[in-house]
Amino acid sequence: MGGDHGPASVVPAALLALDRHPTLSLIVCGDTSALEPHLQTASTLARERIQIKHAPEQVAMDEKPSAALRGKRDSSMRYAIDLVKDGSAAACVSAGNTGALMAIARFVLKTLPGIDRPAICAAMPGLRHGTRVLDLGANVDSSSEELFRFAVMGSVLSSAIDARENPTVALLNIGEEEIKGNDRVKQTAVLLEQSSLNYRGFAEGNDIFSGVFDVIVCDGFVGNVALKASEGVASMLLQFAKEEFQRNLWTKFSALLATPALKRLQRRVDPRRYNGASFLGLRGTVVKSHGGADALAFGRAIDEAVLQVRQEVPERISAKLEQILVHQQVV
Amino acid sequence: MGGDHGPASVVPAALLALDRHPTLSLIVCGDTSALEPHLQTASTLARERIQIKHAPEQVAMDEKPSAALRGKRDSSMRYAIDLVKDGSAAACVSAGNTGALMAIARFVLKTLPGIDRPAICAAMPGLRHGTRVLDLGANVDSSSEELFRFAVMGSVLSSAIDARENPTVALLNIGEEEIKGNDRVKQTAVLLEQSSLNYRGFAEGNDIFSGVFDVIVCDGFVGNVALKASEGVASMLLQFAKEEFQRNLWTKFSALLATPALKRLQRRVDPRRYNGASFLGLRGTVVKSHGGADALAFGRAIDEAVLQVRQEVPERISAKLEQILVHQQVV
Repeated sequence: MGGDHGPASVVPAALLALDRHPTLSLIVCGDTSALEPHLQTASTLARERIQIKHAPEQVAMDEKPSAALRGKRDSSMRYAIDLVKDGSAAACVSAGNTGALMAIARFVLKTLPGIDRPAICAAMPGLRHGTRVLDLGANVDSSSEELFRFAVMGSVLSSAIDARENPTVALLNIGEEEIKGNDRVKQTAVLLEQSSLNYRGFAEGNDIFSGVFDVIVCDGFVGNVALKASEGVASMLLQFAKEEFQRNLWTKFSALLATPALKRLQRRVDPRRYNGASFLGLRGTVVKSHGGADALAFGRAIDEAVLQVRQEVPERISAKLEQILVHQQVV
Repeated sequence: MGGDHGPASVVPAALLALDRHPTLSLIVCGDTSALEPHLQTASTLARERIQIKHAPEQVAMDEKPSAALRGKRDSSMRYAIDLVKDGSAAACVSAGNTGALMAIARFVLKTLPGIDRPAICAAMPGLRHGTRVLDLGANVDSSSEELFRFAVMGSVLSSAIDARENPTVALLNIGEEEIKGNDRVKQTAVLLEQSSLNYRGFAEGNDIFSGVFDVIVCDGFVGNVALKASEGVASMLLQFAKEEFQRNLWTKFSALLATPALKRLQRRVDPRRYNGASFLGLRGTVVKSHGGADALAFGRAIDEAVLQVRQEVPERISAKLEQILVHQQVV
């Protein structure tokens, strides 16, 4: 079992998820001897709804995806994906190596018709509401057709999970008037304008957090850099704030008094509440948790997977893609 | 005169800059009648070092660059660039329309040999120290040769202005092991490895704010999105913090007590302190101030221009490019 904390965060998260979802049952793949100690506190009722599947191997966090795919056929990650493939599980949630999870999921589950490589989609906090952004790093140099399909998948996800009737979709671009984006973005805009999606035009980087759009579409290179740059600036601000509040007795005292406001602020932007990135375009549900996720964060990724299964997201995406591909051929 | 505040921020900034730089003199281009009222408080000594060049036209903030280039030959922006061209001024600082400034500067001043289109470079605050990032939006779909030249220019700038002996240079990339960037990034890495630059490999988005590298190089599309996404997350955090501290009497009181720490925090990440993006690769010095700059921020952009002129940045870049282009031809 992967992730930075392994069973120490996954098992408690699983137990809490069982409480939240009365019809849920879970198969935890990993080293039995490492998992068992964490299950000691489980109630008999919960224990009956958790099955352990022993996996003798583990994909390392820094292992090459191709090596993991070829060499780790008895890893917890591979077993979890295999369970989705053979129908024993409805979804896979993993905090392991992203590249390996993507490679194994793509190889074992296969992609939907029209999708060559799945896109990574995550929800971002925003001023007005959250926004689903994709792709966050699975694809680089995506063609306009691929970007268009990301838009379709993001729109289906937002509609199914966030209960938006007709999700607004925007295309990430830059504001330089004379240039207004690269060729692929311009071509994608044309495809989106001609589609039945609720396309609202270009978004700029800051719109990822303005919460004006339901879905923002971009190439995985751009999306990944934007996501990590945002994490970088947030970490820097947090570190500087800590330093300033630790500076002297007075600032320490003022931080103490400001605790209620600071705690509420922290809760509002807590990345754990947004944990769980979806691999969209697979013939099955795979949710990737952040590697450093604790039980609360991993539980959020489980919730996301439960919702996607209930809302039949892969089936809906498949139907929408088919409808669009047929339409494109007719045109 | 452009920018959101026009003469109201530019003239006070100019007066303060004259105080800071005893050998500086300034030519302010704009509408005389709009400028004069702001000069009333100037001392006789300062007034002697400020010249007004009346410009009957103004480039609007939303004007198309091509339209501004063709149609606004008597604008304050065009006059300012013309003054650099004819040697009356050593540098141009503007808070006006970025695209128009780039188009006019490129047309009037021309680019250095080997540079087709200048790159926009700005300093970002960081955990350890600031980092100069380029390109921030002037170029999209840059070739590996172009990205390599951005690295050369950024390295020269950092060495000249930030007094780094051998600035560390990194290439912005994504962490997905199997992909590790698009083709252009991979090809640029080869060029950088073979060069005399202090190249340190790939950076990820969060490194823009980690302050580990002196220079980070990327395509303008990626750089622009990263910059704006960072601004977006910072605005969101600020807004949420304000809301939480305004929530009730207690939180308002605690904010009051926390003022010293909050003020210091604000000063450390004050974007005004980082105002002034350089157009690198021109035969002359052009510094772009943020459109919303107040006097303090605009003054910072003037300081940047003064430093670049003193350190002969365009000449140094030209020499370094020539050296590299000759070397490439030999190889």
